[in-house]
Amino acid sequence: MEFVDLRSDTLTRPDEGMRQAMASAEVGDDVFGEDPTVNLLQEKIAELTGKKAALFVASGTMGNQVSINAHTQPGDEVICEERAHIFNYESGSPAMLSGVQLRPLPGKYGVLNVEEVEEAIRPADHHFPQTRLISLENTHNRWGGTIYPLDEIKKMHKLAKKYKLKMHLDGARLWNASIATGITIKEFSRYFDSVSLCFSKGLGAPVGSVIAGDEDFIERAHRYRKAYGGGMRQAGILAAAAIYAIEHNWQRMADDHRRARTLAEAINEMPGLVVNLQTVQTNIVIVDTSLTGRSSAEIASRLLEEGVKVIAFAPTRLRVVTHLHIDDQAIERAIEAFKNVSKNL
Amino acid sequence: MEFVDLRSDTLTRPDEGMRQAMASAEVGDDVFGEDPTVNLLQEKIAELTGKKAALFVASGTMGNQVSINAHTQPGDEVICEERAHIFNYESGSPAMLSGVQLRPLPGKYGVLNVEEVEEAIRPADHHFPQTRLISLENTHNRWGGTIYPLDEIKKMHKLAKKYKLKMHLDGARLWNASIATGITIKEFSRYFDSVSLCFSKGLGAPVGSVIAGDEDFIERAHRYRKAYGGGMRQAGILAAAAIYAIEHNWQRMADDHRRARTLAEAINEMPGLVVNLQTVQTNIVIVDTSLTGRSSAEIASRLLEEGVKVIAFAPTRLRVVTHLHIDDQAIERAIEAFKNVSKNL
Amino acid sequence: MEFVDLRSDTLTRPDEGMRQAMASAEVGDDVFGEDPTVNLLQEKIAELTGKKAALFVASGTMGNQVSINAHTQPGDEVICEERAHIFNYESGSPAMLSGVQLRPLPGKYGVLNVEEVEEAIRPADHHFPQTRLISLENTHNRWGGTIYPLDEIKKMHKLAKKYKLKMHLDGARLWNASIATGITIKEFSRYFDSVSLCFSKGLGAPVGSVIAGDEDFIERAHRYRKAYGGGMRQAGILAAAAIYAIEHNWQRMADDHRRARTLAEAINEMPGLVVNLQTVQTNIVIVDTSLTGRSSAEIASRLLEEGVKVIAFAPTRLRVVTHLHIDDQAIERAIEAFKNVSKNL
Amino acid sequence: MEFVDLRSDTLTRPDEGMRQAMASAEVGDDVFGEDPTVNLLQEKIAELTGKKAALFVASGTMGNQVSINAHTQPGDEVICEERAHIFNYESGSPAMLSGVQLRPLPGKYGVLNVEEVEEAIRPADHHFPQTRLISLENTHNRWGGTIYPLDEIKKMHKLAKKYKLKMHLDGARLWNASIATGITIKEFSRYFDSVSLCFSKGLGAPVGSVIAGDEDFIERAHRYRKAYGGGMRQAGILAAAAIYAIEHNWQRMADDHRRARTLAEAINEMPGLVVNLQTVQTNIVIVDTSLTGRSSAEIASRLLEEGVKVIAFAPTRLRVVTHLHIDDQAIERAIEAFKNVSKNL
Repeated sequence: MEFVDLRSDTLTRPDEGMRQAMASAEVGDDVFGEDPTVNLLQEKIAELTGKKAALFVASGTMGNQVSINAHTQPGDEVICEERAHIFNYESGSPAMLSGVQLRPLPGKYGVLNVEEVEEAIRPADHHFPQTRLISLENTHNRWGGTIYPLDEIKKMHKLAKKYKLKMHLDGARLWNASIATGITIKEFSRYFDSVSLCFSKGLGAPVGSVIAGDEDFIERAHRYRKAYGGGMRQAGILAAAAIYAIEHNWQRMADDHRRARTLAEAINEMPGLVVNLQTVQTNIVIVDTSLTGRSSAEIASRLLEEGVKVIAFAPTRLRVVTHLHIDDQAIERAIEAFKNVSKNL
Repeated sequence: MEFVDLRSDTLTRPDEGMRQAMASAEVGDDVFGEDPTVNLLQEKIAELTGKKAALFVASGTMGNQVSINAHTQPGDEVICEERAHIFNYESGSPAMLSGVQLRPLPGKYGVLNVEEVEEAIRPADHHFPQTRLISLENTHNRWGGTIYPLDEIKKMHKLAKKYKLKMHLDGARLWNASIATGITIKEFSRYFDSVSLCFSKGLGAPVGSVIAGDEDFIERAHRYRKAYGGGMRQAGILAAAAIYAIEHNWQRMADDHRRARTLAEAINEMPGLVVNLQTVQTNIVIVDTSLTGRSSAEIASRLLEEGVKVIAFAPTRLRVVTHLHIDDQAIERAIEAFKNVSKNL
Repeated sequence: MEFVDLRSDTLTRPDEGMRQAMASAEVGDDVFGEDPTVNLLQEKIAELTGKKAALFVASGTMGNQVSINAHTQPGDEVICEERAHIFNYESGSPAMLSGVQLRPLPGKYGVLNVEEVEEAIRPADHHFPQTRLISLENTHNRWGGTIYPLDEIKKMHKLAKKYKLKMHLDGARLWNASIATGITIKEFSRYFDSVSLCFSKGLGAPVGSVIAGDEDFIERAHRYRKAYGGGMRQAGILAAAAIYAIEHNWQRMADDHRRARTLAEAINEMPGLVVNLQTVQTNIVIVDTSLTGRSSAEIASRLLEEGVKVIAFAPTRLRVVTHLHIDDQAIERAIEAFKNVSKNL
Repeated sequence: MEFVDLRSDTLTRPDEGMRQAMASAEVGDDVFGEDPTVNLLQEKIAELTGKKAALFVASGTMGNQVSINAHTQPGDEVICEERAHIFNYESGSPAMLSGVQLRPLPGKYGVLNVEEVEEAIRPADHHFPQTRLISLENTHNRWGGTIYPLDEIKKMHKLAKKYKLKMHLDGARLWNASIATGITIKEFSRYFDSVSLCFSKGLGAPVGSVIAGDEDFIERAHRYRKAYGGGMRQAGILAAAAIYAIEHNWQRMADDHRRARTLAEAINEMPGLVVNLQTVQTNIVIVDTSLTGRSSAEIASRLLEEGVKVIAFAPTRLRVVTHLHIDDQAIERAIEAFKNVSKNL
């Protein structure tokens, strides 16, 4: 059986065009700064984000972690939303590698309350870790691909200026936020001191992320990339796929968003399965299975029997993600599978 | 003017008897393990807590931090209450020195909900920091000296066993919890793998804390104490004060508790000042100034003019602490001062 | 002008065959463990090294650093040769990321004296960092590609067993050592608890290294790889190049070695330029410029004018490296350039 | 039997006068900055060292480690002599707590060669840890209490300025260097950005060290002291002993030095025992036992039977230290004991 794999948008395999782009990429030794394709990608990203400089890195985690390290010193504190990727899915790296404490605050759909953030900022006293950075996530994975509204970003930016704090954007899926809102990457990015973007999620490149910021920041981040083992030689092979991905797979994300909504609305009609449609803003659908009385793991296992793969994201929540390999027909198959499972609980 | 200083129970100065105990202490080089008074103190504490071994340390922060380091590895996660001392007042040391992430959970009066803790325990997957330790605080400073009930400790202990997690007790003021409840230090301690106790808070010794646990734990903690610079030579001078403090200043804490309640009830009657009397379980009183429309800093400043020192603990909360130097007369003076201030707002 | 680029064997660009292998690689999401080409490569390496398991990583630095972290705890000490790559070229990562102290000992041609290593092992006392690991490098880059003799490895292994120390091999260029000696990778590896091998040096793959060891070690290393940001998605693209490199570019290293020797002997005949021919055991030639009275930087700059690129490795030492793109004709051009420069000093 | 204890000058117990000073010390809560005796000590030390500010800390290790942390960032490198206390006796703290790599260089009598230091300074390149600090030790414990000559310090200072490096002085026994040379503490200190001095070695105070430097440095060090758990409450008890020690026990160190020389010369006359008299510059005598064919541990054990305690410092080296409790008679007893042991080998 061929599966409809809705577990993640990271699962995408490069198509022929992308493979050709890699096979014909002009490359050099990027540790010497001599890979023309990496340099080209970094220039493109600097322009896209409106920043002075950019740096290709091996993964989204590396992008966030070298950024955090470049902004902070051990003993500092970083404010983030409590379901943030950096707090939950990056192996405790902020403490392990940067020696910083995360200060998770509850958010609504991933959006922090500016007043609560202000209250959380520590006074200058040796007892306290020192607040240094606010990190936002857009779109917000664990909240279901929700968009951090530009107005809220602006308010947070104002607060950050007031307290001389830095702002980092975990924009692994900022591509989706931009397509869904029509707001440019540059406009989203301008309120942040650093931005990370991922090529191997919805864009469908095999490997890599990028960070952008001012030259001093990128210089420091470059050192950490080397220290973490992220200095890669002929990385132009991967950069070529990233460039191809931006050119060919970005605008089409509107289809992923439309399909996610179709799927979400269909599932929400089924007995026992609940989707908060307000959160279905891009390509992620979170399905609450509580009312079925079954665990998400059990539902996921039933769906697997029907040929559909999803992730049990929490004891009673499934994550379903549309992406490059999911067409309208796959959505139909997925809806059918959900129907069969929900009918037979 | 002589002030009534209610800022903290750490302010106490040693009395004549304690000074005499220090002046006549038998001492040796504790780095060589040859200080008889330190050794005696450590034996007494081992017995008091029912643990195999104990270690004298320079401060409560050092006690908590070497304990956390001895229980964990970088990349681990430690669950604590969101107002916990280790999360808020120890300079970000858990991340800086041990490389661990704290997972703060909201608690009621400092008591964590066992179900919420269970939900917060991370699955064994490389994406997640690994949950290793649950740290509780008893009494809980920032919640106002509240006691962590033994039944709740037992429930948490059961959970910890189920998931093979370690339990640490920040018992800086466990002395107070024991006096207030009649439950022994040993009974409170038995559900924990490590316990820290402080001599320089309500007990009135000038310097020092102690940690207790099994021999392997103390052996590891001893190494971290050395690495952090906590190896002190003729520390018996300080240990002598600690022994004296346990013998002379512990049982009298009942008076501190009685006086805190008297003060709390009086303040709570005054216009605009609110004390949640449920939290006044030991020697700390938290006064909410919100209804006065004035900041806690302003109220504290007015009290200072009246000869009473308190701490502005949060924008609209004062912390008031009774201790060794606060007698009934001082409480009367404090009540008078609060009255004068509240009347003239 | 087309340059003869002898700066490093990391500069090699993939040829058509390798590009084709990448373009047609079967891939999956390696973070889910589902990339068949990565899995195949890891199995091949486990077999080649005679270890239970292997892990693909983004770079040689990442391979060494996650290995060091997986073997140690903060406060431990790692013995290495004073010109070792981990001590000199990995950005201080052992201290920064693993919290371990390196104990560099002087070696001859990169080979440590076993008695001196034994003397350097720390007693079990809290004053000392605790010796945990001995790390060797084979071939040794900064000593000029010298081979660590198997007999010396065996002696060190015996010492390590005696003191219960772990052994790590930085085998970035172990490929060369194996070709030059006829000793298998497996035989070299069996005396070590972990081995790192690099694909993007003499083997000519664009990106990546691998580490091998027992299953527990690889499990721990896998966690650190994730934490450092080395978890890559469709990494099979890179693994395909690595597999191709082993099959097509390994045995031919004998040519690199032969050419290095030809070049070394020729340079050593030139006025003012000295090569210690004993160290020319593989593909690296260190040229001492002291007798010319000129800095290595000046000589390198003159060579550049002659169309030959080399690296000023130290104030009076040049590093010259043969590799995949250097054929006999290039060697002739290089000799000519060195002659012209040495004649005109 | 009452022993002549020559193991360390850290073993000294406070005399009556010092105990009285502690018992009558005026104290306050130093965490609030309110301990008048701590403040007085810090002012005295600032004046003595000619620095802007000073900070009392719990131990020599804490003094050095918070200084190192305050001067560096993770990934930096610190140059020191290979027998330095910070490299050998501080539990690996520079890597564990500050994330910095030590670069040990061989020195003669603890004195580094300025040219070798210059060669060791790393270029600004992401591959290298970044050289940030040079740490010297005066007197040098493991070399036998040798003095770092002022002229050598000046040369190193000049080098440090050239490369914009910081200079730290581990001056635990700078008291001795000053007495032995007649050079003031201030003159020794002026070439360093930070200085640590210890009160519990030759000065005979029970606990504590101090660091001095400019205000920014002390501000940063203060934060690290708090984070490491070195914030102590009524530390004036200890500071009073330190002040007493400076006033009463400093000038008398000349006697310790005279006695060490007497002892050294006598031992050097004995068969099989060798003392390099050039190194006996203050209060430490290193005895080489190689010629006896016996380990230092065995000789130490024989001496113990004769009522004399010394330390086996290395397999064939004993350390013998004079101090406050060692008078001329004790030296005679020690010489007698060494004679008896050396005669009967």
